[in-house]
Amino acid sequence: MVSLEFPVVYFGGDYNPDQWPREIWHKDMELFKKAHVNILTLPVFSWALLQPAEDVYNFEWLDELLDMIHAQGIKVCLATATAAQPAWMSRKYPEILPVDFEGRKRKHSGRVNFCPNSPVFREFSGRLVRKMAERYKDHPALALWHVGNEYGTYCYCETCEKAFREWLKKRYGSIEELNRRWNMNFWGHTVYDWEDIVAPSGLSEVWRDGHLERTTFQPMVLDYKRFMSESSLACYKNEYDIIKGICPDIPVTTNLMGAFKPLDYFKWAEHMDIVSWDNYPGLKDSPGSIAFNHDLMRGLKGGQSFLLMEQTPNQTNWHPYNSLKRPGVMRLLSYQAMAHGADSVMYFQMRQSIGNCEKFHGALIEHAGHEHTRVFRECAQLGQELENLKGVIGARLKARAAILFDWENWWAVELSSGPTVQLSYVHQVKKYYEALFKRNITVDIIKPGDDLSPYALVIAPVLYMLKPGVAESLKDFVENGGTFLTTFMSGLVDENDRVTTLGYPGELKELLGIWVEEIDALEPGMCNSIRKTQAAEALSALTRERYACAMLCDVMEAQGAEVLAVYENDFYAGKPAVTRNAYGRGRAYYVGTDSEEDFIQELLEAICDECGIIPDFQVPQGVEITQRFKGDTCYTFVLNHLTEKVIVDLNNLTGKDLITGKTVAQRLELEPKGVAVLEEK
Amino acid sequence: MVSLEFPVVYFGGDYNPDQWPREIWHKDMELFKKAHVNILTLPVFSWALLQPAEDVYNFEWLDELLDMIHAQGIKVCLATATAAQPAWMSRKYPEILPVDFEGRKRKHSGRVNFCPNSPVFREFSGRLVRKMAERYKDHPALALWHVGNEYGTYCYCETCEKAFREWLKKRYGSIEELNRRWNMNFWGHTVYDWEDIVAPSGLSEVWRDGHLERTTFQPMVLDYKRFMSESSLACYKNEYDIIKGICPDIPVTTNLMGAFKPLDYFKWAEHMDIVSWDNYPGLKDSPGSIAFNHDLMRGLKGGQSFLLMEQTPNQTNWHPYNSLKRPGVMRLLSYQAMAHGADSVMYFQMRQSIGNCEKFHGALIEHAGHEHTRVFRECAQLGQELENLKGVIGARLKARAAILFDWENWWAVELSSGPTVQLSYVHQVKKYYEALFKRNITVDIIKPGDDLSPYALVIAPVLYMLKPGVAESLKDFVENGGTFLTTFMSGLVDENDRVTTLGYPGELKELLGIWVEEIDALEPGMCNSIRKTQAAEALSALTRERYACAMLCDVMEAQGAEVLAVYENDFYAGKPAVTRNAYGRGRAYYVGTDSEEDFIQELLEAICDECGIIPDFQVPQGVEITQRFKGDTCYTFVLNHLTEKVIVDLNNLTGKDLITGKTVAQRLELEPKGVAVLEEK
Amino acid sequence: MVSLEFPVVYFGGDYNPDQWPREIWHKDMELFKKAHVNILTLPVFSWALLQPAEDVYNFEWLDELLDMIHAQGIKVCLATATAAQPAWMSRKYPEILPVDFEGRKRKHSGRVNFCPNSPVFREFSGRLVRKMAERYKDHPALALWHVGNEYGTYCYCETCEKAFREWLKKRYGSIEELNRRWNMNFWGHTVYDWEDIVAPSGLSEVWRDGHLERTTFQPMVLDYKRFMSESSLACYKNEYDIIKGICPDIPVTTNLMGAFKPLDYFKWAEHMDIVSWDNYPGLKDSPGSIAFNHDLMRGLKGGQSFLLMEQTPNQTNWHPYNSLKRPGVMRLLSYQAMAHGADSVMYFQMRQSIGNCEKFHGALIEHAGHEHTRVFRECAQLGQELENLKGVIGARLKARAAILFDWENWWAVELSSGPTVQLSYVHQVKKYYEALFKRNITVDIIKPGDDLSPYALVIAPVLYMLKPGVAESLKDFVENGGTFLTTFMSGLVDENDRVTTLGYPGELKELLGIWVEEIDALEPGMCNSIRKTQAAEALSALTRERYACAMLCDVMEAQGAEVLAVYENDFYAGKPAVTRNAYGRGRAYYVGTDSEEDFIQELLEAICDECGIIPDFQVPQGVEITQRFKGDTCYTFVLNHLTEKVIVDLNNLTGKDLITGKTVAQRLELEPKGVAVLEEK
Repeated sequence: MVSLEFPVVYFGGDYNPDQWPREIWHKDMELFKKAHVNILTLPVFSWALLQPAEDVYNFEWLDELLDMIHAQGIKVCLATATAAQPAWMSRKYPEILPVDFEGRKRKHSGRVNFCPNSPVFREFSGRLVRKMAERYKDHPALALWHVGNEYGTYCYCETCEKAFREWLKKRYGSIEELNRRWNMNFWGHTVYDWEDIVAPSGLSEVWRDGHLERTTFQPMVLDYKRFMSESSLACYKNEYDIIKGICPDIPVTTNLMGAFKPLDYFKWAEHMDIVSWDNYPGLKDSPGSIAFNHDLMRGLKGGQSFLLMEQTPNQTNWHPYNSLKRPGVMRLLSYQAMAHGADSVMYFQMRQSIGNCEKFHGALIEHAGHEHTRVFRECAQLGQELENLKGVIGARLKARAAILFDWENWWAVELSSGPTVQLSYVHQVKKYYEALFKRNITVDIIKPGDDLSPYALVIAPVLYMLKPGVAESLKDFVENGGTFLTTFMSGLVDENDRVTTLGYPGELKELLGIWVEEIDALEPGMCNSIRKTQAAEALSALTRERYACAMLCDVMEAQGAEVLAVYENDFYAGKPAVTRNAYGRGRAYYVGTDSEEDFIQELLEAICDECGIIPDFQVPQGVEITQRFKGDTCYTFVLNHLTEKVIVDLNNLTGKDLITGKTVAQRLELEPKGVAVLEEK
Repeated sequence: MVSLEFPVVYFGGDYNPDQWPREIWHKDMELFKKAHVNILTLPVFSWALLQPAEDVYNFEWLDELLDMIHAQGIKVCLATATAAQPAWMSRKYPEILPVDFEGRKRKHSGRVNFCPNSPVFREFSGRLVRKMAERYKDHPALALWHVGNEYGTYCYCETCEKAFREWLKKRYGSIEELNRRWNMNFWGHTVYDWEDIVAPSGLSEVWRDGHLERTTFQPMVLDYKRFMSESSLACYKNEYDIIKGICPDIPVTTNLMGAFKPLDYFKWAEHMDIVSWDNYPGLKDSPGSIAFNHDLMRGLKGGQSFLLMEQTPNQTNWHPYNSLKRPGVMRLLSYQAMAHGADSVMYFQMRQSIGNCEKFHGALIEHAGHEHTRVFRECAQLGQELENLKGVIGARLKARAAILFDWENWWAVELSSGPTVQLSYVHQVKKYYEALFKRNITVDIIKPGDDLSPYALVIAPVLYMLKPGVAESLKDFVENGGTFLTTFMSGLVDENDRVTTLGYPGELKELLGIWVEEIDALEPGMCNSIRKTQAAEALSALTRERYACAMLCDVMEAQGAEVLAVYENDFYAGKPAVTRNAYGRGRAYYVGTDSEEDFIQELLEAICDECGIIPDFQVPQGVEITQRFKGDTCYTFVLNHLTEKVIVDLNNLTGKDLITGKTVAQRLELEPKGVAVLEEK
Repeated sequence: MVSLEFPVVYFGGDYNPDQWPREIWHKDMELFKKAHVNILTLPVFSWALLQPAEDVYNFEWLDELLDMIHAQGIKVCLATATAAQPAWMSRKYPEILPVDFEGRKRKHSGRVNFCPNSPVFREFSGRLVRKMAERYKDHPALALWHVGNEYGTYCYCETCEKAFREWLKKRYGSIEELNRRWNMNFWGHTVYDWEDIVAPSGLSEVWRDGHLERTTFQPMVLDYKRFMSESSLACYKNEYDIIKGICPDIPVTTNLMGAFKPLDYFKWAEHMDIVSWDNYPGLKDSPGSIAFNHDLMRGLKGGQSFLLMEQTPNQTNWHPYNSLKRPGVMRLLSYQAMAHGADSVMYFQMRQSIGNCEKFHGALIEHAGHEHTRVFRECAQLGQELENLKGVIGARLKARAAILFDWENWWAVELSSGPTVQLSYVHQVKKYYEALFKRNITVDIIKPGDDLSPYALVIAPVLYMLKPGVAESLKDFVENGGTFLTTFMSGLVDENDRVTTLGYPGELKELLGIWVEEIDALEPGMCNSIRKTQAAEALSALTRERYACAMLCDVMEAQGAEVLAVYENDFYAGKPAVTRNAYGRGRAYYVGTDSEEDFIQELLEAICDECGIIPDFQVPQGVEITQRFKGDTCYTFVLNHLTEKVIVDLNNLTGKDLITGKTVAQRLELEPKGVAVLEEK
């Protein structure tokens, strides 16, 4: 049985000793101990070393390393090393190389540079993994399996095109059904033979416009994304299944990347023992934006703890401008990960490469090679602190609010031709997430179709695609007293991006008590405003009469719903912009335009009040409080994202700060970027 | 004999019943009647349905539809369905697929995705059209033929390359002549064999720089554009000729796209019984800019009425931001089309698709599927109104001012390497057009070489390329009393983009009485100004002493011309910027710099006064008045583009408003976006 | 023996009579004489005319031209005509055509459009050059050889890929060494066979991001750049060697392009008898920026005179906006070239083409075809003036300050992934160059490894790559009393872009007396500031307390160095930003951040004062004074870049102005854009 009750908060990360001579390995071991490292991930990119030729394997160097690591009492997260196939393999079996969006056969290079449907890749990667699993299954250092690395390649080669046709046959059964579901009579695309189907790429139905992907045939591209996500997943599963056959008790994971568009991680998580992910926030990402990714990753397996598999100890190298993590920030973000469900703090990387693109990426051991650096000191201090946090392992968050998130919906929203290129699904989701985050309300990120009964409030921004059963599930939820909120561009299409003919928002019309007749798209710089109605007077959290809105404005009629706000300008002035519908024992809100954040903040405050979702703490903006629970124990993470000292009112909470060991009650003083983790039984 | 005296103002548009089940067809018929629809265009994209396999044709469903439509008293604009070949054809005959500018063989996809020189395409499209024509030639609903759809693909495949060589052989006769005309000794490009000639593409002499197409070999690229325009035209003609052989009396058209750069529509119009076009203004296009396109389309066949083949009843889907057409705007733009020569008001589309890229494009029948929508109501009202406008059919505009427009000139101007990438031919033409439009002066858009005798004023902005005979024709015109105006960058090159050695502006030097020694290009943000001279005092419409100018400044000498304005700055301060030359009984103006619009507005006012082109009405800015004449009857279209009510002084005009049926005299009150069509015998 | 003591200041340039009929040739000769032309470059692009078919050569027309030119007493710079192979050659031997960065086989087109490793190209170009050399070796007009034209094509074809492997074998000897030097264990790139190596392109390890080239494998791309530079050089050398075998006494050159990134001109210059280059400043290039290029070109052969091979008499054609050269500017820039070491003033082009992309490029004889133009007059005047400047030929500049410049460093800096995409090597170098230029301090541009003993001050901005021996050479220089200055991002990597493990700045640590622990990258818009310390008080040229800095901030410790300035903000406030280290008898400065220009200007003033580098003249900003020396004679060029008249204080200088023939002492009055060349014995 796989146990996720790890003995320690794993602290360590990616280690690439293959880039260094043996004398450095010994030096590394010393430094790792000084830094309280207890886990090392390797050998992520060593396929070429492990298999120098088709019939030659070379594991001795790895044997030596694992023994050396074990001798230090450090565990190993054993990587399957299949993220970059050896050069001889690409040369001997060129089919393994992918064809890119522009139709170009790639040459050997980079990483994750293989066709995910390549039989040769599956065969060779499986063979390697089997050898590794058999060799190390009983190694005492083995703690985790790490399959591949940051999957995500889309390929458009003939192998993929053929596999896509097979995938479609399974999905649709007949060519007639495919024609119907893809609406293929449009532009005379009706096909009569599976062979007529083309992988949609830059050579056919898709083109790129800056960072946007545009297409004429949404259903086709949508299915290709599903297929590509599943193709990479099949590569992962191939390795996963082999490992589980040999090492059934060791948890297996692969490192995900948060809100990473190409892969439907909800589907992936079904095949992972534990979710792990790589957290590389951009310079301007807000704390809430980072927290959203953690909550999304936690949501993938229904709230189960996850691993922070990678973060940088300092700067990154691939951003255009790679500033240093200011003192305390790395530590703060590490605790934030744990606050949201992580049971580990791991880095990329342990020792900084001297050559190639990651040479200026941060590392525990920097180029200078010693421990007398700010970064090493900060890491080592954190490593030591984490030794006191074992209790947190496995503790869970409790949320009464949930946000629906759906990769297929994301894809469909952003593939649409019209009404506006400005609409970003994740941005909209985050607007609602941030409004709750700022009030320290714990949120679960769930997928359409999940059980809603634990929640008092469910929010589904831009629920454009309604999958079968989802409307029913939402209606049941509200009927039974739940509160639901959705927005413009919801209820519009089915799984094949076919628009409802019920009138917008389709199957949600009755629940919401509205009909959206038209959707107006405003140019950048244009805006409208919404004005509170009488009916909204009771929502006292709405402090203003008027809020700005822009981008999209539904022109709608209330058909049973109360009107909470109306437009002030243009030909739909006076028409409803925000509504609330009583439905069963619950209520369904509809926000028909992209309002300014203040409105969302205040509306959600009003709604949370109605639902009885009241934050436990009143703390200054910029201070984050999150709680994890295990048995009778509550772990309260208090995080100061500000650059100034704060005093936090702890309300009735009394607990031991696991970092300082001191008991804290009533008031807590936190340094800039300071952290406390209060244990309360 | 083809008659264009249609029985009604055609009202209807593109109908895609092939995307819907039969029960919807019946529902549609009801709704069409409610909307006063009298024509339907179909089946534009049904080749795959009509010919499911190489030897199988299936017309039964279309038979049924045509009969059903006819039963409603509705006419059919029968589309040849050849704009998108069936998938099996692309697969079985891959030669049919084009090679794009970047040298990539396209896969089956999109539409108009065929090589225009493909013999297979010509063969199959011809065969289909022959079958359709034979089958429906006597169908009572048949009113018009609509060949293909929005042609415009450029292809760079080997078939095209070979055909290009043949085209060149015909054009130049010998390789020596080609070397001479293309100035091939430049950069050692001299060729000795036709086989040495390469289709100019992104793999050879051309590259793209944002939206600009840049090249090192202008004459070659210019000829390739001519050749590509003619190649697509040959596809059209192939179908046209087959239809005319079978249905000689039914008018044949294809839908053009206004100032669409890839195709030389003057050449196309020679082979069309009637011009039709698709009017999709952008959100920020001014009324004058839209009117320009109508006048250009009317000009293609020397002033003959045209068809408004497509417009959207509401929003588009392919703009980045697709705002709704505000109430009244669709109606206003429909009447504007008629005011400028349209004899129809037709839409894309009748019923909104539920899937793929046009699903959020406006339609008469929206997704909700019923008539209780703003859009349906506005369309139906318009349909009813148009029933009173039959008299307008065939009425013509009368213009005493003309603007020269030339696709080949457009291509050449914008292919030029230097003096500035900022120069847009259409923008320059529109600057002059708008100045006349704002004063409600009717303008014909004509091509170089057309008869100029009907006009008092001919304007040729940026007449960069002087084709044989054009200078003579302009001289004759002025000699006989006409007024001519041209600008910087005129008279510079011949049909092969070879620069005159006569001194700029080449063959126009004598007519204009100037010599342009140098052409200065200013960076964006830089400007100069021009100052009126004594000689310009008589031009009282020029209200200011000084006007800004930018982009291009000719450094010139008057050689006989009067100097009307001089530069104020830089080393050519004091030198002529605007001149007028007496020539024969007329006058020739030259504007040597890109002046601000006020100057053009006022200069043209002065010139029109001189020429006796006096607007009949004095109306507020934003109110458009245009007249069409038939026999003794004058139809006056009064269009209020403003968002406020206006009162229009009708001068001496008294007429019956065909929309309200009421007689109007002296003053006319128009609602925001309001329209009147006054009939005066 | 090759003599560079030319009989005249060569004045003339590129002449393309092959684009014109014979009657024009005669007209040209007359005009050339009027313009004082004494040299013509031809036939640069006439390969197709000279060799119309594989076995046919046609030199008669060229014979005639050379004789005609000689009859005028004009010399010929004989071009080898190999910059554009004939079309028949590309067709018959397609291997000659290159494959571009995107993996696309180019078609015949443009120029320099051949694979530089093509054996066919080498064979055919060699054969042509041999014939030309044998035919014209004794022609009395022959003065110079001009090989090819503006080399620079990078190719990625299989021929190149194979040749690259051979090149690597030679460079690294063994595959193990290559793996080590390229750090190939990174991302599992270890190779076991030379055949596994791929030419790095857009199909493999490289991609383009706007104008930036990004890569994951820097050492590989760096070597490919070295290899490509050498591949083109081999084409040049192939022709050079043939010519030298036949015409040993005639100087051979090829026209370079200043700071042109693709080619390592220091390597090229070793194989050129004299450097020549094409000076096409952009509209906004400062006088210092242009002067930098001249000094760089002079530096290629250790200070030897060079040829200004091309400049435009007026506008260019390929800039987006091609403004006219204002009156006097062409003359001023011509003299500036001579001031910095040019012994010629040559143009592209003599007569303006009438067709293709250069038709709007300036020329001595413009389209109008006569001499009555501003441009002709200005050229002719200059031609006459230059007849008095023979004495300057061969005179050398004397510099006590040098700036290190290195193409490989440039490539490496800008290939780096992190810390910031904003870092431009040439921009940084120019910041220091301009600071000296503004004070009229003569600078030599030298390469790492050059003899430093002639200099008192050596500046090496962003000396990122330290090649073997360079640190030692710098230490010796300082030890012996020299002053050295370097900046952030120095001393970081070796020739294979592998980072030092000595702590930054690696081998320069001891010399500079600092350790850079971290490098912070600021986003655009962010900044910091530096504050002068007590220790800097003695540097009186530093007039301010505080200077802005941005982009990159080293976080460092002084380890022996004095701290001259500290940061004011962020977590490294108070830490050193600028330091000075006493080392031996000299001093080593380190500027750890990208400071505003004022700081560099003032710091260099202080340093120059220390070193005793004192400008001889105090002149207004915008007036440039540069001196060349020959024997006992000093030629002082005084150049007024301003648009107003200036009076220049000549200090003690008395000399004859070679332009006016008048003796000048003490004070010199210069017109706007005016020039004087004072000869002092």
